[in-house]
Amino acid sequence: MESDPKKKASVLILGAGRVCRPAAEFLTSIGGDSPQEWLKSFRIGDLEEQTCVQVIVASLFLKDAEEIVEGIPNATAVQLDVMNQENLYNYISQVDVVISLLPPSCHSIVGGACIQLKKHLVTASYVDDSTSKLNELAKSSGVTILCEMGLDPGIDHMMAMKMINHAHVQGGRIKSFISYCGGIPSPEAANNPLAYKFSWSPAGAIQAGRNPATYRYQGEVVHVDGENLYDSAKRLRLADFPAFALECLPNRDSLIYGDLYGIENEASTIFRGTLRYEGFGSIMGSFARIGFFSTEVIPILENQKRPTYRTFLLSLLKIREGNLDESAIGENDIMESIVSLGLCKETETAVKTAKTIVYLGFHEESEIPKSCRSAFDVTCLRMEEKLAYSGIEQDMVLLHHEVEVDFPNGRPTENHRATLLECGRTKNGKTTTAMALTVGIPAAIGALLLLQKKIQTKGILRPIDPEIYMPALDILEAYGIKLLEKMD
Amino acid sequence: MESDPKKKASVLILGAGRVCRPAAEFLTSIGGDSPQEWLKSFRIGDLEEQTCVQVIVASLFLKDAEEIVEGIPNATAVQLDVMNQENLYNYISQVDVVISLLPPSCHSIVGGACIQLKKHLVTASYVDDSTSKLNELAKSSGVTILCEMGLDPGIDHMMAMKMINHAHVQGGRIKSFISYCGGIPSPEAANNPLAYKFSWSPAGAIQAGRNPATYRYQGEVVHVDGENLYDSAKRLRLADFPAFALECLPNRDSLIYGDLYGIENEASTIFRGTLRYEGFGSIMGSFARIGFFSTEVIPILENQKRPTYRTFLLSLLKIREGNLDESAIGENDIMESIVSLGLCKETETAVKTAKTIVYLGFHEESEIPKSCRSAFDVTCLRMEEKLAYSGIEQDMVLLHHEVEVDFPNGRPTENHRATLLECGRTKNGKTTTAMALTVGIPAAIGALLLLQKKIQTKGILRPIDPEIYMPALDILEAYGIKLLEKMD
Repeated sequence: MESDPKKKASVLILGAGRVCRPAAEFLTSIGGDSPQEWLKSFRIGDLEEQTCVQVIVASLFLKDAEEIVEGIPNATAVQLDVMNQENLYNYISQVDVVISLLPPSCHSIVGGACIQLKKHLVTASYVDDSTSKLNELAKSSGVTILCEMGLDPGIDHMMAMKMINHAHVQGGRIKSFISYCGGIPSPEAANNPLAYKFSWSPAGAIQAGRNPATYRYQGEVVHVDGENLYDSAKRLRLADFPAFALECLPNRDSLIYGDLYGIENEASTIFRGTLRYEGFGSIMGSFARIGFFSTEVIPILENQKRPTYRTFLLSLLKIREGNLDESAIGENDIMESIVSLGLCKETETAVKTAKTIVYLGFHEESEIPKSCRSAFDVTCLRMEEKLAYSGIEQDMVLLHHEVEVDFPNGRPTENHRATLLECGRTKNGKTTTAMALTVGIPAAIGALLLLQKKIQTKGILRPIDPEIYMPALDILEAYGIKLLEKMD
Repeated sequence: MESDPKKKASVLILGAGRVCRPAAEFLTSIGGDSPQEWLKSFRIGDLEEQTCVQVIVASLFLKDAEEIVEGIPNATAVQLDVMNQENLYNYISQVDVVISLLPPSCHSIVGGACIQLKKHLVTASYVDDSTSKLNELAKSSGVTILCEMGLDPGIDHMMAMKMINHAHVQGGRIKSFISYCGGIPSPEAANNPLAYKFSWSPAGAIQAGRNPATYRYQGEVVHVDGENLYDSAKRLRLADFPAFALECLPNRDSLIYGDLYGIENEASTIFRGTLRYEGFGSIMGSFARIGFFSTEVIPILENQKRPTYRTFLLSLLKIREGNLDESAIGENDIMESIVSLGLCKETETAVKTAKTIVYLGFHEESEIPKSCRSAFDVTCLRMEEKLAYSGIEQDMVLLHHEVEVDFPNGRPTENHRATLLECGRTKNGKTTTAMALTVGIPAAIGALLLLQKKIQTKGILRPIDPEIYMPALDILEAYGIKLLEKMD
C-alpha cells in the first residue's frame, strides 16, 4: 500500500483576507505527511488516506497572498485580478474546486468562469440575485455553487436545519424558532464603556444597526424601523452561559427564514437576533440621536483650518464654546447636556453615553483630519482608532439557537438548544480570530466535501440539506468547533 | 566578568499544592542560563545577574513534590512532615528563605523553626493570633515573617495601599474605599445555571457564603447576618468591563481594613465584597432555605438501604413520593414546590433554583453513598461531582478597587480604579489556574525581595508598606500580571 502514490487534489482560494488562512491551513492539513491532531481522531471518508490537497491563494496584491501561505506547506501564492479574464480562467482551470472569499459583487464573474470550466465553487456570502441567475446554467453544466458556507450565513443554517429536521422526523412541529448570533469581543477584551470593538472599518457595523427588522412573535408580525433598532435592544441571559451580560437586537427580516427552513406554516415565533453586550444598543441609540451618525456634510469640517474634536462635540451638544471653561469638558458636563437636550430617557444611559464619548476622545483638543466631512466620518474614525483590538485581545463568536417543539398525542413540548461559543486563539504570536475561524473552516469544509464528491446536487446550494450539513457538522466538531446541544 | 561563578541562593517551599508550581517556576527562572521572556524586559536589581535560585519543594508525600518539580531545572523534591522537628530544621537550615504554603495551622511551628535558625519566612495566609505571637521574637532575632503575600490577602493590600498612599501624598482624603475580589470561572466555563465551579471541596466555599458581614456605607455601619448573606447579593457592573454579569456579596468584617489601611477616620464608606456571577446569591439563598445546607444528620441517610437523590429531594420539598408519577420530577414540578412552600419570593429565582437542582442531578434515581449523613454532605458531593472544571476550562481572578478621593482647596473629587483580571493558562496541556498564579507569584516575589535584602524590616509584616508593595507590584507587572489603572 505504501507504494501507492497519493492523489493530488487542488483548491484555489480567491481573496487573502483574514478568513483565508484558517481555510488554507485546514485544507492543506488533509492527507499530508504529518496529519494534524484533530485528523488523527477522525477519518474523513477515504480522502484522508488517498489525497493530498494543494492550495493556491490568489490575491490582487501578491504580498497579501504570500503572507497567508507563509509557513503552510502545500500552499502557493499568486497575484490575480479577477477582472483579468485570461488569468482568472488560467488559475481556475488548474484546480478541482474554487473558494471565493471576495466581496459578493465578484461572485457572479467567478461563478460564470467556474461554470464554463466545470469547476465547483464555494462562497461564504448570501445568495443574491446575480448569483441566483446562475442556477440553471450551473445545473445543466453539472456544477455545484455552494453558497452561505461560513458562520452567519453558514453554521447558523446547519445548526437550525439539524434541529428542525430532527423534530420533524420525530413527528414534532416547530412552535418557536429563535436564533442569536454575535461577533463580539471576549468579555476580557470588552474593556470599554460600549463593550464592543471593531476588527475592521466601523462604517458597515454602524449602518447594520440601523436596518429595519421584521420578525414574528407569538403569531404577530413585528416591524422595527431602522431608526428605532438600537433602542429596541433587549436584555438577554443564556441559561447555559449566565456570566455573559448580553442583549439582543432584531436582525433584518427573520420571516424569510420561515420559508427557507420550511417552518413558515407551523412556527408562531420566528426571530433572528444580533448579540451585543448590555448597554450597546442604548448607547448607540443615544449616539444616533445626538447626531454622531449623520452623513450630511458639515460646513466646519470643510474648512482649511481644522476644527478640534472638542469643537465638533460642543456643536453636536449645542454648547457655545464661551459657556464652558476652555480646559474642561468632562463626563458630567456631557451627561447633563444629553439629558437637558432630551436625548436620553434614562440617566444610566446618559452616563454610559457620556463615558463612551470621553473614551472615544471627543473631548480632546486635537484636530479632525481632512478626510472627515460628516459626523459619521468623524465617529467612524474615532471608533476605528479607539475601539481596535490590541495584540493579545481576543474576539468571540456566540451563536445560539432555541427551538420549541410541539408533539401530537400529548407528548410534552420540548425545548432544544444548541450553542457555538468560540474565542480567538493565539499561537506562536499569531492570532486567529474566532470570526476568521468560524467563517474560514466551513468554507474549507465545503471545498473538502466537493473534492470528496459527497455533495452530488448541482446548481446553487445552501447548507440546509442533510447531504451538506450532516458531514459538515461532523467535521466541524472533529476539528474542535464544538456545538453544545441541550434539551429540556 | 564571565569567570565570576554565580552565587547560589536557595528557597524551601513547604507544601506541593497547585500554588507551588508557579512559585517554583518563577524563582528558578531567576538568573538561570536561559532567562524567561519576562525577565529580559526587566532587571530585578542585581540579583538577576549574580544569583541563581535553587528551590527545594517539600511535601508530606514525595510523589506530590516530584510532580511539581518535574521539568523545572534547579528544583528538587523532598519528603517532609513538618511535625518531624529534626527533618524540618534540617531542610530549613539548608536554605536562605522559606515559603510556607501549608494550612495556616502549621505556620506557627514553621515560624518558630525559622526564627531559631534565623531564616526569613513568607506565607500567603492571614496573620492570625498564633502568628502574631511570634512578632517580638522574630524582631529580636532579626527575622522577617512576611504574611498575607498572595492574592486576597496579598495583591489586594498592595493595590489598595498604592492608591491610598498616592492620594495621601497629594493631600487628598479617602472618602470611599470599595474593594471587590472573586475567584470564579471564566465566562465561557461558567456553563451551568449557578454560573460557578469548584476547584476543590465545596464545603469551605459554601460555608464562607454564610459568614456574617460588616461594612460602612456613607457613614452608617451595616451588619448582615450570616443567614441573610446570600440574599444580600447586589447586581454589579464594572464600567471598564461591562460584559461580565457580576454580583457582589459583602465579605466578612470590612471595618478592620479601615485600621489596617489607615483610613478609619476619613472614609465614610469602607466595603469589601466577594464577586460572583449574577444569580449565584439568590440561588444559594434558596438552597439554604430549602434545607440543602443543613448539617443535621438525616435518619434516612443512616439506613443500610440507601435512599436515592430523588427521594432526598422529595423529602426536602415535602412532596410525598406517591403524589408524583414515578418516572418524572421535572424542573417545573420543582419550581412550583419551591414557590408554594414560600421559599422564593421571585419566580425568576425559583426557575433558576430549579434548573440548578436538576443540573446537580437531585432528580436522579441513583443511590446516595454512605459517606453522606446530612443534607450538607449530599449537596457538597453533588456540587463537587457536577461543578468541577473540565480539562480545558479556565478559572478567572477579578480584583477591583475603587477609591474616591476628596481634596482641599476646591480640587475636584477624583475616582481612582485599579483592576486585576487574570484567566487560567494552558500550556503544553498543563493548566495553571489564575488562582494558583495570583497566589503563587506574590509569595515567590516575597521570597525574592527577601533574598535581595530589599525588605529590611523585621518581625511580622504584611505587604502594606511601600518597601514591599512598590517593588512587588513592579515585578508582578513585569511578569505579565497587569493592573489596569484608571481615573476620572
